[in-house]
Amino acid sequence: MALIESLQDLLRIPSISALPEHKADCLRAAAWIRDYLPNARLVEKENCNPIVRADYCNAPGKPTLLLYGHYDVQPPDPIGEWRTPPFEPTIIGNDIFARGACDDKGQTLILLEAVRSLHPNLPINIKVLIEGEEESNGAHIEEYLPANAAELSADAVLICDTEMFAKGLPTLCTGLRGIVYGEIYVEGPAQDLHSGVYGGAAPNPLQAIAQILASLKGNDGVVNIPHFYDGIQPPTLAELAAWRSLPFDDEHYRKTEVGSPALTGEAGYSVLERTWARPTFEVHGIVGGFTGAGAKTVIPAKASAKISTRLVPGQDPAAVAENLRAAIAEATPSGVTSRFELMAADEASVVDTSHPLIEKAAKALQQTFGTKTVYMRSGGSIPIVGRFRQHLGIPSVLMGFGLPDDNLHAPNEKFHLPNFYKGIEAVRNYFTVVAQ
Amino acid sequence: MALIESLQDLLRIPSISALPEHKADCLRAAAWIRDYLPNARLVEKENCNPIVRADYCNAPGKPTLLLYGHYDVQPPDPIGEWRTPPFEPTIIGNDIFARGACDDKGQTLILLEAVRSLHPNLPINIKVLIEGEEESNGAHIEEYLPANAAELSADAVLICDTEMFAKGLPTLCTGLRGIVYGEIYVEGPAQDLHSGVYGGAAPNPLQAIAQILASLKGNDGVVNIPHFYDGIQPPTLAELAAWRSLPFDDEHYRKTEVGSPALTGEAGYSVLERTWARPTFEVHGIVGGFTGAGAKTVIPAKASAKISTRLVPGQDPAAVAENLRAAIAEATPSGVTSRFELMAADEASVVDTSHPLIEKAAKALQQTFGTKTVYMRSGGSIPIVGRFRQHLGIPSVLMGFGLPDDNLHAPNEKFHLPNFYKGIEAVRNYFTVVAQ
Repeated sequence: MALIESLQDLLRIPSISALPEHKADCLRAAAWIRDYLPNARLVEKENCNPIVRADYCNAPGKPTLLLYGHYDVQPPDPIGEWRTPPFEPTIIGNDIFARGACDDKGQTLILLEAVRSLHPNLPINIKVLIEGEEESNGAHIEEYLPANAAELSADAVLICDTEMFAKGLPTLCTGLRGIVYGEIYVEGPAQDLHSGVYGGAAPNPLQAIAQILASLKGNDGVVNIPHFYDGIQPPTLAELAAWRSLPFDDEHYRKTEVGSPALTGEAGYSVLERTWARPTFEVHGIVGGFTGAGAKTVIPAKASAKISTRLVPGQDPAAVAENLRAAIAEATPSGVTSRFELMAADEASVVDTSHPLIEKAAKALQQTFGTKTVYMRSGGSIPIVGRFRQHLGIPSVLMGFGLPDDNLHAPNEKFHLPNFYKGIEAVRNYFTVVAQ
Repeated sequence: MALIESLQDLLRIPSISALPEHKADCLRAAAWIRDYLPNARLVEKENCNPIVRADYCNAPGKPTLLLYGHYDVQPPDPIGEWRTPPFEPTIIGNDIFARGACDDKGQTLILLEAVRSLHPNLPINIKVLIEGEEESNGAHIEEYLPANAAELSADAVLICDTEMFAKGLPTLCTGLRGIVYGEIYVEGPAQDLHSGVYGGAAPNPLQAIAQILASLKGNDGVVNIPHFYDGIQPPTLAELAAWRSLPFDDEHYRKTEVGSPALTGEAGYSVLERTWARPTFEVHGIVGGFTGAGAKTVIPAKASAKISTRLVPGQDPAAVAENLRAAIAEATPSGVTSRFELMAADEASVVDTSHPLIEKAAKALQQTFGTKTVYMRSGGSIPIVGRFRQHLGIPSVLMGFGLPDDNLHAPNEKFHLPNFYKGIEAVRNYFTVVAQ
């Protein structure tokens, strides 16, 4: 099967880890990965998606890289906004459109293909670890990593799950924001009530949710959680200077990437600072009341909202979660009760650019793309990076091949095919440079 | 078929006018009503639910009553909270549980059965008008009423679509709140965005909806729409005194009807004033973002909220709608655009208790229940009452047989069967008293 057909084949599997009804698809994707790699195996665990593992440690005296990727993908909602079906990969020009094309099946396949194409003559030692719960709870790897730290020992992790700063500009990601994610549940009346009969006396949980959310962040973009900004480590002056030298135009970014009438956020910080080095608060979905067509005059008995904060170095996820819980309780209006259920709490990560394996990655990228490698951060969170540092004591090399307009987590996700092929070349070159 | 079986038969039809997929059920319910009444007919109109009409005008010199009811019902959401299936009427003790049991199939059947049981010896002239869009847009009757005003001429309208103040207490409703209902639509990014990558720079339409809603009503229950309270006609001192003499206990109401930890609303007004004679603002449903199980870190491209205000005498629905539109625009944060789509605007109604046909209604109720009739208002809206006044120039007699715990518009709607039978007796008595 040609490489592009393999990519299409993998993208056809709707391995959405957040949705239980796609469990079988996740199993299929795991088996697909296992079958793609020589001598790979599945690590299974009840109620979890399998981890795919493989080891190619036949280069004594050479460094060892642990390759990490994930085969699970985000849900495709809102499904109606896809121009092509999310699980029927469609090539238009130089792009392939599908859920997971970039995040992270396309980029995971870069790692797999680099290994497969060199096997059994890999110039360094390679361990492969591909999971299937990155977009949901990560329960399996959470347990697997500390329990198998010796088996997974390596000099660094290589992850292809980030993006290039711009097309043609080889990029290493040196920082990721952390995240605290959870859901606010509000309860008011014992059951749904008629808003005519009870409006004016009965509390409305949806209105309470609105008041709580409005209290947590205002028009100024400032997050109103107690102690939220305490102890934040700002980027170094050198980092800030490097970011200022990157080719970036607010208005171009607004028009081509965000598409909103204006950008928002904290005053006094550039867009790159706001998205890479400042924490934020967002609401992701609200449930409650009547959402069908037409009019229904109901005061709902309950409502809920999925929310998250993104964290930067210096913020402790556990403390943020507790302070968020307190802020929600404080903002809850009388007449209703609220509770906050924490779903994830992961700290931010930064990587030292002077680490030899980071320097070699920059060199391999430069060789491949013929242009100097730039360093960026990402506003997103890859919690596993913190776990690798914690349990294996090693840094992660974030060599990303996505593009800013790849629509991660959004409709019409795509992957730029030239980056797919260049990515494989870059990873092969990295193996060679690491071996030197 | 026994009367109770007829009621069950009618309740089995899921005639939900707000949901297009139940169109055929609405047609079935209309045909059912037509077949129940002697010599009735359907008035059909394209894209509308039929109106059922019948005339029994064989009592020259006697007054004419126009009987109004509706065969359509509210959607049953949230379906999971019904203890019995909403369209499988279930008798438990003295109550029959089903969507529409009280609102308004049970009460409409009171009117139909009173007519059918006396036909062809009705002591007064009767015209029957039963519609099927009361719970949605009312488009058909909106056009039918003014176009057929002469044919529908009568001395008063008799409507059984309200409730008794308490079990065993015969009640006439003398006031209804008006309503302005619509939906706020907010748009921000051109498409859903990853909250990690864009959080801190991209506007969030769900957060904007929260801020708009929070700005429209705060914890104090005061509605922040410009000029909202201007010109409100308060209840008379006599009305207020009568309301104070009604058997009502805030704590009992909170516990048995609302079920929330506390009641809410404007300070300085009793519960009955707040729900009967003060305007309010409510949110009924919010759409946007990811609402499935698990976590998805999305900044949604758009969000919307269904909202309404209830209006009292002295408030002009058109002016309120325009001021609400302005308040929404004013509260819309930068980075997003908003628009407000108006779905309904109907003024409040009050009825003069000294009208002879109201006095006779009070007398017939007292005869039937053996106890003095009380006057109450309702916080709900029956827009048709205003239309009857406007187009036919006649008052509505609101003789209701629901109970406060009948769960209108909510799961587990029920109708108290003794009230069903007493209701038929009361309407028959009313015909007799009107004929005297």
